[in-house]
Amino acid sequence: MITLHLIGIGTGNPDHVTMEARHAIAGADLVLVPEKGDGKSDLADLRRQIVAQVCDAPPVIEGFGMPVRDPALPYLERVERWHDAIAARWSEAIARHPQARDVALLVWGDPSLYDSTLRIAARLDPQPRLRVVAGITSLQALTAAHAIPLNTVNGPVVITTGRQLRDHGWPEGAETVAVMLDGACSFDVLEPDGIAIWWGAFLGMENQILEAGPLAEAGPRIVAARARAREAHGWIMDIYLLRRSG
Amino acid sequence: MITLHLIGIGTGNPDHVTMEARHAIAGADLVLVPEKGDGKSDLADLRRQIVAQVCDAPPVIEGFGMPVRDPALPYLERVERWHDAIAARWSEAIARHPQARDVALLVWGDPSLYDSTLRIAARLDPQPRLRVVAGITSLQALTAAHAIPLNTVNGPVVITTGRQLRDHGWPEGAETVAVMLDGACSFDVLEPDGIAIWWGAFLGMENQILEAGPLAEAGPRIVAARARAREAHGWIMDIYLLRRSG
Ligand SMILES: C[S@@+](CC[C@H](N)C(=O)[O-])C[C@H]1O[C@@H](n2cnc3c(N)ncnc32)[C@H](O)[C@@H]1O
Ligand SMILES: C[S@@+](CC[C@H](N)C(=O)[O-])C[C@H]1O[C@@H](n2cnc3c(N)ncnc32)[C@H](O)[C@@H]1O
Repeated sequence: MITLHLIGIGTGNPDHVTMEARHAIAGADLVLVPEKGDGKSDLADLRRQIVAQVCDAPPVIEGFGMPVRDPALPYLERVERWHDAIAARWSEAIARHPQARDVALLVWGDPSLYDSTLRIAARLDPQPRLRVVAGITSLQALTAAHAIPLNTVNGPVVITTGRQLRDHGWPEGAETVAVMLDGACSFDVLEPDGIAIWWGAFLGMENQILEAGPLAEAGPRIVAARARAREAHGWIMDIYLLRRSG
Repeated sequence: MITLHLIGIGTGNPDHVTMEARHAIAGADLVLVPEKGDGKSDLADLRRQIVAQVCDAPPVIEGFGMPVRDPALPYLERVERWHDAIAARWSEAIARHPQARDVALLVWGDPSLYDSTLRIAARLDPQPRLRVVAGITSLQALTAAHAIPLNTVNGPVVITTGRQLRDHGWPEGAETVAVMLDGACSFDVLEPDGIAIWWGAFLGMENQILEAGPLAEAGPRIVAARARAREAHGWIMDIYLLRRSG
């Protein structure tokens, strides 16, 4: 029976990798690496680099081409079919290595946070034994870079997406809101008075950028910095924390 | 000028430690270790064990006695004065090592999450340079142990405390709620229908315990398991995730 190790690797800094992740990678017979073939191919390289770095005798690495989403389908069905297709690619890659027992997948950040790896793994047939290794999330990379606490004393925190913020506004009763997966600076839908923002792009990576301040002042700076960085690199990943005072 | 490194070490499993944390500990001239002198003294031992494990030539370790909280004061003032007193102990410990430049504090889990280390550090005078190293949180240890995602697809997550849940009930509009710092199984205030729970105690440690299921059935099992484990060990740390279906 195969054990599939879903291994969180942090968000760009190879030093985010935990000892547990190192051991899990070094102990694998086979490592599956997605090849997106888009502007993010440096992420595939990072995965290969981490594997090479933690293993004296590198395990077999098997690249698999990422399927494309069918734009003709409605959103939820499109994602479902895409996950089916990725699961099929994993199965094919694993089938090419019938002797492999410990198969590893390197997951950006932590496998629990806005990541579909667990949902794709649930589609495999036969179902492998699953092991999850936690990794540093982009939210932790953000709070560490700014040296700020996530929560106020005893205060709750909402983690949400750009789309949720845009569609539903400030979450009812929330004091601290962390926003991920935001392609469009959705904080612009908020009345900025009394809100502070801590923003970061490419966290943990060479080109890390940080901005912070009252939303009214920092917001426009962030919109401009994000557009510039996106232009320069061809892609961007960013995350931010909003806190309402009083 | 002193750099104070606040280093997340994960939640009990020395293998949670990241490469960044290893390097930061190994590079410190001085490591401050709190000595609580209560049932949790195994946590002080764990800190010493991690330091010994990651350093060829261990840095100087300076234990400092944790001050006690003044029960006569109202809650918020009590916490404020306690943080002042801890900051004073740090200052004394640092003053005993005038040659130290890189001072490390090992923080349980991640320094950003329900932890006062950053607030205490802000009280130091002169203010040192601060560096935060992210660590695996107990929430990540929970989702990894159960092999579950934190969020639903594109869904928000509320992280809160037992006290908040008890005082305010289910957070308005939330689908997924993670509860920490709960000394009293506060999920018992909820109408359990349609809620699932994933619970863990002593996560990452030898005596880790897991329970999960529909709240109506798993809730009473958790109350019993928690009481037994607390009785057996003299103390307990636990955390849980609640998800409402539909
Ligand atoms: C599909 S989610 C994956 C999150 C990941 N599992 C984690 O634990 O951080 C991608 C989102 O994470 C955030 N993100 C991931 N890596 C980042 C980085 N290095 N810098 C800034 N944001 C990042 C962005 O909000 C991005 O839209
Ligand atoms: C003061 S907070 C510190 C949290 C820590 N900074 C983190 O990142 O997880 C302590 C709370 O964290 C949770 N916790 C910490 N370690 C834990 C463990 N090993 N197992 C279960 N819960 C834990 C419990 O809810 C506990 O009440």
